[in-house]
Amino acid sequence: MEKPNTADYLDELRWNDDGLVPAIAKDHKTGKVLMMAWMNAESLRCTVEEGRAVYWSRSRQALWRKGESSGNTQELKSLRLDCDGDTLLLEVEQIGGIACHTGREHCFYRQFVDGEWQTVEQVLKDPKEIYAASS
Amino acid sequence: MEKPNTADYLDELRWNDDGLVPAIAKDHKTGKVLMMAWMNAESLRCTVEEGRAVYWSRSRQALWRKGESSGNTQELKSLRLDCDGDTLLLEVEQIGGIACHTGREHCFYRQFVDGEWQTVEQVLKDPKEIYAASS
Repeated sequence: MEKPNTADYLDELRWNDDGLVPAIAKDHKTGKVLMMAWMNAESLRCTVEEGRAVYWSRSRQALWRKGESSGNTQELKSLRLDCDGDTLLLEVEQIGGIACHTGREHCFYRQFVDGEWQTVEQVLKDPKEIYAASS
Repeated sequence: MEKPNTADYLDELRWNDDGLVPAIAKDHKTGKVLMMAWMNAESLRCTVEEGRAVYWSRSRQALWRKGESSGNTQELKSLRLDCDGDTLLLEVEQIGGIACHTGREHCFYRQFVDGEWQTVEQVLKDPKEIYAASS
């Protein structure tokens, strides 16, 4: 039997012992790094097929369609793989302009200043509001 | 005895079972994501104290001062931590303009196009040349 060529691209990744790779999401307009999450083969396949970021939630051990609760989905603009085949880079359109569950534009809102981590990004929307619809 | 406050910032990270966190390096001028590597507490402390990216090499199980062989060091411009405290984002000046060991500007040189990973970035310098001085 022929191997289905539709999934060959999944074989080129070097998944870790848990079958995962880190996936970095970057805003295709602002160039900001929004977040880092994890993908397994199934979530990468879903990402490609659905054209939006689908991660693997390690805490829930389940597919995590980013924005499934908040509506803040990440539409896939481009997808890249690194030299070692063990890290993905997604350029996305961040719907709603909020990637972080704290209600901030992105997750890297703490900056190292004067020897400590200082919050340097403001909350754009109260998380209670963001997730109200799904509760 | 007082706990030395100089290392308090290390305690705020959620290190994985191997004592590591992913560290994303971004070019502070171009905004491009250059690479992803790993840091342990010691490498993060060295990064902060030396003002340049010092990773932890999982393959060599040793501190990896980026550019120690190639000369292509990464001067630290800013350092950020994400909401979960388990991923770092470095903005760096990439000395030599080459972050990838393949001689390319960055490591994410394979793009997903028409169902496969296509190389879309050119080699700027032959790796043999880059690493000649150190061999």
